[in-house]
Amino acid sequence: SKYEYVKDFEVEDNLMPHTWIVIRIDGRGFTKFSQAHRFQKPNDMDALLLMNAAAVTVVEDMADVVFAYGVSDEYSFVLRKTSTLYQRRASKLISVVCSLFASSYVMNWSKFFPNTTLQCAPAFDGRAVCYPSESILRDYLSWRQVDCHINNQYNTCFWNLVGSGKSTAEAQNILKGTTADVKNNILFDTFNINYNDLPQIFRKGSSIYRKKVERVVKVEDVSGREIKRLKSCVVVEHEDIIRESFWTNNPHILGGK
Amino acid sequence: SKYEYVKDFEVEDNLMPHTWIVIRIDGRGFTKFSQAHRFQKPNDMDALLLMNAAAVTVVEDMADVVFAYGVSDEYSFVLRKTSTLYQRRASKLISVVCSLFASSYVMNWSKFFPNTTLQCAPAFDGRAVCYPSESILRDYLSWRQVDCHINNQYNTCFWNLVGSGKSTAEAQNILKGTTADVKNNILFDTFNINYNDLPQIFRKGSSIYRKKVERVVKVEDVSGREIKRLKSCVVVEHEDIIRESFWTNNPHILGGK
Amino acid sequence: SKYEYVKDFEVEDNLMPHTWIVIRIDGRGFTKFSQAHRFQKPNDMDALLLMNAAAVTVVEDMADVVFAYGVSDEYSFVLRKTSTLYQRRASKLISVVCSLFASSYVMNWSKFFPNTTLQCAPAFDGRAVCYPSESILRDYLSWRQVDCHINNQYNTCFWNLVGSGKSTAEAQNILKGTTADVKNNILFDTFNINYNDLPQIFRKGSSIYRKKVERVVKVEDVSGREIKRLKSCVVVEHEDIIRESFWTNNPHILGGK
Amino acid sequence: SKYEYVKDFEVEDNLMPHTWIVIRIDGRGFTKFSQAHRFQKPNDMDALLLMNAAAVTVVEDMADVVFAYGVSDEYSFVLRKTSTLYQRRASKLISVVCSLFASSYVMNWSKFFPNTTLQCAPAFDGRAVCYPSESILRDYLSWRQVDCHINNQYNTCFWNLVGSGKSTAEAQNILKGTTADVKNNILFDTFNINYNDLPQIFRKGSSIYRKKVERVVKVEDVSGREIKRLKSCVVVEHEDIIRESFWTNNPHILGGK
Ligand SMILES: Nc1nc2c(ncn2[C@H]2C[C@H](O)[C@@H](COP(=O)(O)OP(=O)(O)OP(=O)(O)O)O2)c(=O)[nH]1
Ligand SMILES: Nc1nc2c(ncn2[C@H]2C[C@H](O)[C@@H](COP(=O)(O)OP(=O)(O)OP(=O)(O)O)O2)c(=O)[nH]1
Ligand SMILES: Nc1nc2c(ncn2[C@H]2C[C@H](O)[C@@H](COP(=O)(O)OP(=O)(O)OP(=O)(O)O)O2)c(=O)[nH]1
Ligand SMILES: Nc1nc2c(ncn2[C@H]2C[C@H](O)[C@@H](COP(=O)(O)OP(=O)(O)OP(=O)(O)O)O2)c(=O)[nH]1
Ligand SMILES: O=P(O)(O)OP(=O)(O)OP(=O)(O)O
Ligand SMILES: O=P(O)(O)OP(=O)(O)OP(=O)(O)O
Ligand SMILES: O=P(O)(O)OP(=O)(O)OP(=O)(O)O
Ligand SMILES: O=P(O)(O)OP(=O)(O)OP(=O)(O)O
Ligand SMILES: [Mg+2]
Ligand SMILES: [Mg+2]
Ligand SMILES: [Mg+2]
Ligand SMILES: [Mg+2]
Ligand SMILES: [Mg+2]
Ligand SMILES: [Mg+2]
Ligand SMILES: [Mg+2]
Ligand SMILES: [Mg+2]
Ligand SMILES: [Mg+2]
Ligand SMILES: [Mg+2]
Ligand SMILES: [Mg+2]
Ligand SMILES: [Mg+2]
Repeated sequence: SKYEYVKDFEVEDNLMPHTWIVIRIDGRGFTKFSQAHRFQKPNDMDALLLMNAAAVTVVEDMADVVFAYGVSDEYSFVLRKTSTLYQRRASKLISVVCSLFASSYVMNWSKFFPNTTLQCAPAFDGRAVCYPSESILRDYLSWRQVDCHINNQYNTCFWNLVGSGKSTAEAQNILKGTTADVKNNILFDTFNINYNDLPQIFRKGSSIYRKKVERVVKVEDVSGREIKRLKSCVVVEHEDIIRESFWTNNPHILGGK
Repeated sequence: SKYEYVKDFEVEDNLMPHTWIVIRIDGRGFTKFSQAHRFQKPNDMDALLLMNAAAVTVVEDMADVVFAYGVSDEYSFVLRKTSTLYQRRASKLISVVCSLFASSYVMNWSKFFPNTTLQCAPAFDGRAVCYPSESILRDYLSWRQVDCHINNQYNTCFWNLVGSGKSTAEAQNILKGTTADVKNNILFDTFNINYNDLPQIFRKGSSIYRKKVERVVKVEDVSGREIKRLKSCVVVEHEDIIRESFWTNNPHILGGK
Repeated sequence: SKYEYVKDFEVEDNLMPHTWIVIRIDGRGFTKFSQAHRFQKPNDMDALLLMNAAAVTVVEDMADVVFAYGVSDEYSFVLRKTSTLYQRRASKLISVVCSLFASSYVMNWSKFFPNTTLQCAPAFDGRAVCYPSESILRDYLSWRQVDCHINNQYNTCFWNLVGSGKSTAEAQNILKGTTADVKNNILFDTFNINYNDLPQIFRKGSSIYRKKVERVVKVEDVSGREIKRLKSCVVVEHEDIIRESFWTNNPHILGGK
Repeated sequence: SKYEYVKDFEVEDNLMPHTWIVIRIDGRGFTKFSQAHRFQKPNDMDALLLMNAAAVTVVEDMADVVFAYGVSDEYSFVLRKTSTLYQRRASKLISVVCSLFASSYVMNWSKFFPNTTLQCAPAFDGRAVCYPSESILRDYLSWRQVDCHINNQYNTCFWNLVGSGKSTAEAQNILKGTTADVKNNILFDTFNINYNDLPQIFRKGSSIYRKKVERVVKVEDVSGREIKRLKSCVVVEHEDIIRESFWTNNPHILGGK
């Protein structure tokens, strides 16, 4: 039609080839959302597992996502360097990841919150960032895991202090400017909590990736012998991804074609 | 942390000020999705009403969306020219609209499809386009509505032909290169369908916008007299938005501050 | 060759259609450049005329440039809204304008500075900015002309004070926070300068555009009668371009197709 | 002033950090320009040396340019990976390089063409391209040098054929689809030209970079003994930059901080 010229106003937004693409999404207004649904403080295990379930949907759906890392209300999805998914168009990638995640979050809600009605439609903002080398990509992931650690340590102290009767202002004051060591001591001395005994999912966040796992694919009729095959499975782990060893143990994650 | 430099790789994507922003979203792979959920052909009223319900969520949530237009598996959301929502950052706008729409779509699913289980997490791609003048913006909306009309006319003929026993190849052949008039005649002569009698939602798509509507806000105790007020309500209509008259009758839609 | 894939790293940078494109260029390090070539302070008439000569080269060379405005070491070139020059690719437009201007600046140097050797190769930075409406475009031009006025008034005071024996620090101090009126009074009372008598090129900058001018195109052999024709000429003026009247008197500049 | 809001329409165009930036410039309309100034065909030594002189100006002026490669009417300037010149703003980099090159080209014109008047202001288009790794950057440079070789071989054959009396159509026909070997044979058999004896600047293009060179910095008064120091000098060479050896012999070019 004579109106078709309006399509010329669309702008190309292809991301640079041969770079690692990270799509990071983050819950919109989850401060309010977590209160409205009475998430446990500072960490709600069900809320985190629901985030992970939604992220698994994304990883399983999009073969080019080789790694995902989640903490709090956010998730980062790493596309392999050579991906040409949607011709690397930023808005396509961002929108599909965000909407797929949101759909799956809602679809899985009742599994993790069987007794809580979903009050409103959750939304997630998203962005695409390119990283030119594996080393900088790993710095990106380290940045998120350090953030997880720092926030978790602070929040654990904060909510225990508040739980023990301090006002939020008092708790803030006590923690202001304290080092990691001091925070660990407060936890141990005052609340008898050994920080390292907290669930790893709280301290390390969640990593999702594919792993070759031995699976029984058939059981022989007569002998009952199990036939096993290496199958590629999506796994959710809570490892330290800052350390070199994680990556040397899993060279296929970033090293794949 | 020493890793924070990775944030510098994020790219600014603010859209040009003082232009109309359109966020157009479109169902990913809805050819397959509509089959999997047995949508009626060519138009499934429930599927369209579900799209509208999700779009209403977006319009009600985002005050800067002054108009939305939907057809098939797509929806366009128009932000007012002076909007500074998310500082006009394209990825924020696209991702929030798409994920909010997707969440709401899933949350409303069972209302419109009480007997059909949602098989998989639906996703929507999204893009942001800027239009520098009201006149070009209206051409954009006309473009979508002309598309609605052309596709609907073709599809109505096509599926009636197929329903009457033709193969899809035969139906295609019959319609190849035919004008609008010829298509209307096929419908009338062969299937006794007057195209203009089809539901307006199929022929014109759906427009969502705010309207001052008189509403009863109180009923006086004794007299039973109704107190009415003009309230701004989000309405869903199926009007011709190509014609001048729609816009002169609703000057507040694009004319608001 | 097998190396051709590197071309895929080039990024599209087409500017939004149907908007006014402004290419603004600015002399790199002209504080130093003007000293090295002993430009008169605060305004060097030859330096300004040389800038104008270079700008005329650009306007004459590029038919889509409908207006240019210059002051100090900068020039703005306005391309008509419908221009498709270089498919509106920003880097093409910026680079061609800047390099053409620079070439012409050097080629014309000796005409305006016959006794001064050009010490080093001058460079100009450039940028492209789009404006969605005529009204905002005019605000852009007004912005530059207001800047011209404010700087010129300040600099004229400043250099007269310095010329009269004040140190630069003293001059700065005297002018700090003064209004336009006060500055005019200083000029008048102390230096007997009526600001409005200064050359208009200093106070208003330079505007370049095409004008239909009556030109003698032929002189008849016998009668000596002159045959005149309206010809489109590039002219350099120093008018007030903030006032409405300039634009109503010259509707063809922005109103042309 | 109240007009300052127009500055908000400027768009950020910072190039991705930690990538190699290449600014490639190319003479605008040099087919015509080379004819107007009677450049020798297919290669005009003076024209090439003038290009090199202009490029040296750029390399000497901009410390972050670590390498430049030129052929025909084009030049590529490579900025080191960590450069933050102009905060990596694309339009600043492109415009300054292009205008500086153009100025210098005009300033040096009479040195290389003492008997030819410069007819018009030369212009150069420019673009910025980022390369995420050294290996892809080297593929970029190889791409340009392969192009140089292929064009030069073809053009040398073509103009020799034309010089020997063939029409341009005949020459084109003879060369259509021929391999490198066949072209070399035509040169040798028909024109007695050994391709490898042609000046290296024609066959390999020109590379500009910094080299530590031993220079006499002082001569002792009495003894006449020369004191030498390693100084960093900008050199122009015509080497093979596709081969590994060039880069292993000059590790400082891309390896510098
Ligand atoms: N109680 C509780 N709150 C959580 C949990 N995970 C995340 N949140 C809350 C804590 C924070 O207020 C919020 C995440 O912070 P953000 O910086 O993303 O802020 P928010 O989502 O409110 O705003 P945004 O739209 O992202 O700018 O979500 C959890 O497991 N339990
Ligand atoms: N049966 C039925 N199908 C519909 C209805 N609305 C949309 N669809 C289907 C028809 C088309 O195959 C599809 C929309 O076409 P698209 O061009 O958006 O293609 P699709 O979503 O398959 O791929 P995409 O991911 O958008 O490139 O959705 C409906 O009401 N009934
Ligand atoms: N004496 C004299 N100086 C002038 C004249 N026109 C411009 N200039 C000088 C005054 C300013 O120092 C300089 C223009 O200011 P800019 O803000 O463009 O700074 P500059 O070019 O030094 O740095 P830049 O590379 O643009 O960031 O040029 C003139 O007619 N006479
Ligand atoms: N005779 C002669 N011509 C040369 C020499 N170096 C370059 N040229 C000419 C040959 C080509 O026609 C032209 C370079 O080709 P381009 O693809 O850059 O085309 P041109 O500059 O005409 O157009 P453009 O504005 O770059 O699209 O310059 C030379 O040394 N001698
Ligand atoms: O969202 P935050 O607060 O973690 O920080 P940000 O990502 O820098 O902010 P924004 O979401 O506005 O990009
Ligand atoms: O999605 P289509 O087929 O309507 O057409 P498009 O929008 O031009 O294609 P894309 O979704 O790839 O931008
Ligand atoms: O160049 P200035 O100082 O007039 O101001 P600017 O244009 O905002 O700065 P930049 O040249 O860095 O874009
Ligand atoms: O300029 P060319 O012909 O070598 O090829 P290009 O660079 O692909 O074309 P353009 O200058 O239009 O980007
Ligand atoms: Mg944020
Ligand atoms: Mg959040
Ligand atoms: Mg968050
Ligand atoms: Mg599409
Ligand atoms: Mg679709
Ligand atoms: Mg569609
Ligand atoms: Mg500046
Ligand atoms: Mg300057
Ligand atoms: Mg300036
Ligand atoms: Mg080119
Ligand atoms: Mg050229
Ligand atoms: Mg060329």
